[in-house]
Amino acid sequence: MKMAELVERSGVPLATIKYYLREGLLMPGAPTSATRAEYGDEHVRRLALVRALAGVGLPLPRIKAVLDVVDSPEPGLFAALGTAIAQLPPYPTDDVDERYPRARAAADVIGLTFDPDYPAIAQLEQALARAESAGIPVTPERLAAYGEHAFGVAKYDVEHLPRGREDAVRYAVVGTAVYEPVLTALRRLAHRDLASEMLTPPSDPPAGAWHAGPHDENCGDRRRPDR
Amino acid sequence: MKMAELVERSGVPLATIKYYLREGLLMPGAPTSATRAEYGDEHVRRLALVRALAGVGLPLPRIKAVLDVVDSPEPGLFAALGTAIAQLPPYPTDDVDERYPRARAAADVIGLTFDPDYPAIAQLEQALARAESAGIPVTPERLAAYGEHAFGVAKYDVEHLPRGREDAVRYAVVGTAVYEPVLTALRRLAHRDLASEMLTPPSDPPAGAWHAGPHDENCGDRRRPDR
Repeated sequence: MKMAELVERSGVPLATIKYYLREGLLMPGAPTSATRAEYGDEHVRRLALVRALAGVGLPLPRIKAVLDVVDSPEPGLFAALGTAIAQLPPYPTDDVDERYPRARAAADVIGLTFDPDYPAIAQLEQALARAESAGIPVTPERLAAYGEHAFGVAKYDVEHLPRGREDAVRYAVVGTAVYEPVLTALRRLAHRDLASEMLTPPSDPPAGAWHAGPHDENCGDRRRPDR
Repeated sequence: MKMAELVERSGVPLATIKYYLREGLLMPGAPTSATRAEYGDEHVRRLALVRALAGVGLPLPRIKAVLDVVDSPEPGLFAALGTAIAQLPPYPTDDVDERYPRARAAADVIGLTFDPDYPAIAQLEQALARAESAGIPVTPERLAAYGEHAFGVAKYDVEHLPRGREDAVRYAVVGTAVYEPVLTALRRLAHRDLASEMLTPPSDPPAGAWHAGPHDENCGDRRRPDR
């Protein structure tokens, strides 16, 4: 297809496509004359990927790093996904203890592989250190509970990983970026529903009262009608 | 206690305490002379709360909003927690469809209460809209899977809510801020472990091969040794 059709099919403005070509985010087309080139479906797909990565806020060098993973001749998709996802925030800051003592202990509790080279280990260390600084460290019991559900979500994610390197990397990176906020919003909404069940007094409370405590024995068994 | 002891016990520098007093983040002590006042344990607790809220990145007006919730004479702790948590990011942007059609449908799927006034509804709507824009909309199946685990995590959280208004608000706000990154890091690490199990070829693969697919029937039954 010609450039005009690429603009139409991708929905990306001409000036942006030219910018991506100059920056090496989009591979050149096959030249048909000194000023024209022919583009293919791979260009439409690549533009969609670049737009998706830019849309989740990745700066240009990090978009390039993800594209390098897609285009790499290295065989291991699994390692590739780790490198690609590491382009997403949060980026660990300098004050993280690089022996990752908290993450190592947490991995033990949950039964996670402790691989200090995997970027999410630094991310976990930082998150655990911040909880400590805030005066509410993450207990082993909380880690075990969170770990169980993190594995539950991750199992769904990995089982639905598309086949094919480009689609898999796109799903892993863009999916991590856009699904994490879905998960955290759902958790906050679940807090609301559960707190409403557990904290709302049954009837006519005196001002300031807080009737149903967290260990009210009826609470644990209450089920949502459709779950 | 005198100011010097408040500085020592709270670990907050004198200049910062004076700033908090001026800004109304810390209630004044009981005056003992024209230039001196007596402070109590409530000042130490309040300083810890302000530091924790500032530590998770809340700007001053939002810290004040949380403190107003703590100090409010309104009885309902449950509504108070919602208002307090709404001070945390992400803050919905202007382009959110305020009828929240995606969040309404999602609440139906999961069995969540749809309360458009609860701030996390706008947050969910925005997250779902962004997944759509990125070309990987959240399917009802994914929502059901995520919802189940969001409820699982939230149940642990709410069951461990401390009694007492100040502690409960602190735990809800600071805990939401510091535990969300723990959860997302754990999910990324769980991805790694599960992808490693499911994507690593059993032995000696030809270059570029991707042996075990996402629906490999042995994967679903594999369990971590300690879970």
